[in-house]
Amino acid sequence: MFQERLAGVAARVAMHLREVMVPFGSEPVIEGMRYASAGGKRLRAFLVMEGARLHGVSDDQAIWAASAVECLHAYSLVHDDLPCMDDDDLRRGQPTVHKKWDEATAVLVGDALQSLCFELLAREECSPDPQVRADLVLSMARAAGAQGMVLGQALDIAAENAARPLTLDEITRLQAGKTGALITWSATCGARLAGADMTALRAYGDALGLAFQIADDVLDVEGDAEALGKAVGKDEEAGKATFVSLLGLGAAKTRAQELVDTACGALSGYGAEAECLREAARFVIARKM
Amino acid sequence: MFQERLAGVAARVAMHLREVMVPFGSEPVIEGMRYASAGGKRLRAFLVMEGARLHGVSDDQAIWAASAVECLHAYSLVHDDLPCMDDDDLRRGQPTVHKKWDEATAVLVGDALQSLCFELLAREECSPDPQVRADLVLSMARAAGAQGMVLGQALDIAAENAARPLTLDEITRLQAGKTGALITWSATCGARLAGADMTALRAYGDALGLAFQIADDVLDVEGDAEALGKAVGKDEEAGKATFVSLLGLGAAKTRAQELVDTACGALSGYGAEAECLREAARFVIARKM
Repeated sequence: MFQERLAGVAARVAMHLREVMVPFGSEPVIEGMRYASAGGKRLRAFLVMEGARLHGVSDDQAIWAASAVECLHAYSLVHDDLPCMDDDDLRRGQPTVHKKWDEATAVLVGDALQSLCFELLAREECSPDPQVRADLVLSMARAAGAQGMVLGQALDIAAENAARPLTLDEITRLQAGKTGALITWSATCGARLAGADMTALRAYGDALGLAFQIADDVLDVEGDAEALGKAVGKDEEAGKATFVSLLGLGAAKTRAQELVDTACGALSGYGAEAECLREAARFVIARKM
Repeated sequence: MFQERLAGVAARVAMHLREVMVPFGSEPVIEGMRYASAGGKRLRAFLVMEGARLHGVSDDQAIWAASAVECLHAYSLVHDDLPCMDDDDLRRGQPTVHKKWDEATAVLVGDALQSLCFELLAREECSPDPQVRADLVLSMARAAGAQGMVLGQALDIAAENAARPLTLDEITRLQAGKTGALITWSATCGARLAGADMTALRAYGDALGLAFQIADDVLDVEGDAEALGKAVGKDEEAGKATFVSLLGLGAAKTRAQELVDTACGALSGYGAEAECLREAARFVIARKM
């Protein structure tokens, strides 16, 4: 059930973003935005759509916030791939934006995708209630900015130049920013849209985000470059501390499984309705890509 | 009067941004945000504060939107200065962010300053009315993004690699995005905060923005590098079409003066209360920096 819904969300987000960008024209920076926002698993959008469904928010409404978070995610990937950051030539098996166009275009594509995220959240279609829209913008800005995702990325870069590898506490803080903040935002978005209590979805999102990062570290050791569409073994090569290097492969997998159990347990109040979100959590640590 | 008010706004914005960033800590990316957002003429913030005053919005409230637009402006400068963009070593006479830190930090500083702009606009202190906050976010996202500032910057880069210089129409479109959208946003912000009609301030902002860019082109020919805190003669050296190269120096100055007259005339409904905004328009083409 989860795989079909995920695929459905992915198709819907792709279509929605294409439609939103129709009036934007065809300058290279616009084509770059389309290119960068066209693919991916759409896990964050899926979390938005499922959380919205649990709270009685329609798909037609939730698609706006779901597309917004995918714009934000796409921007972060375009900038992370830049030569001065992670210097990646491939993303999802395709040339990265700075490879297909150039670095200046990649910087601008990321910049404009961040703006587009906030445009989508502030549009009336996202919620008829302006208080909800302002709350979505505020929480997203915090999740994305200097106390969230950007801080995580900055800590990641600092770690590469540090004299000693990071400790488990430091890696956990890094992850909470770099991937966790946006995943938790996505998980709680449906409750925000409905003006409902976010406690359960926040606990789910926090555990899921950490499990996701541990699984990513495991994939960098055990994964297949072709299936992943990106290089593997990069962390070890770079001498980076990861959950795997700090805990060991077996203990890292055990920790990820515990986190998935925590995530699933957090949803008990939603009963069987939340089964698809539980499947998503199990998928995150079982995935091969 | 204008100079004192501008200086007052500059001091107040600097203080406000320092306060806002106190809880952010002291990672290099955060220090870079403080550094990049610390200086400048603060013309955009001034436009916000004056427009707000004309519409009875308190300084304590307007400072939030004024600081937000300065964050957005600062982000655009940090990214524009990157080696892959304009490749500038100096900004306001100081090393640019990628020179003082490194390129990765500069990318992240810009990214986080954009997020911070939207955070400030969405905070309750910016306006007690959530509809106003959502409107500020939406209009800012459009002014900043792929149909506004980023598009202008992309057109500017494309022009450097084009086979022929731009025409006057093309330069005007480029300018409307690159500097015009944010200046018009700033000029109309006070009316937005008050939920008032924006027609007059929009006409003022549109004319002011274009006059500002023409004056910039004139300064690149006639200006003094030391007073400006940046290199001059870059446009001619790069063979770039500018308002000066297309119109000639004399006609460019005449056009700028006409635009200032238009801008001042647009404010007639505000009477003497708007004198400071009129002075600002005259300053924009008389400035030496």
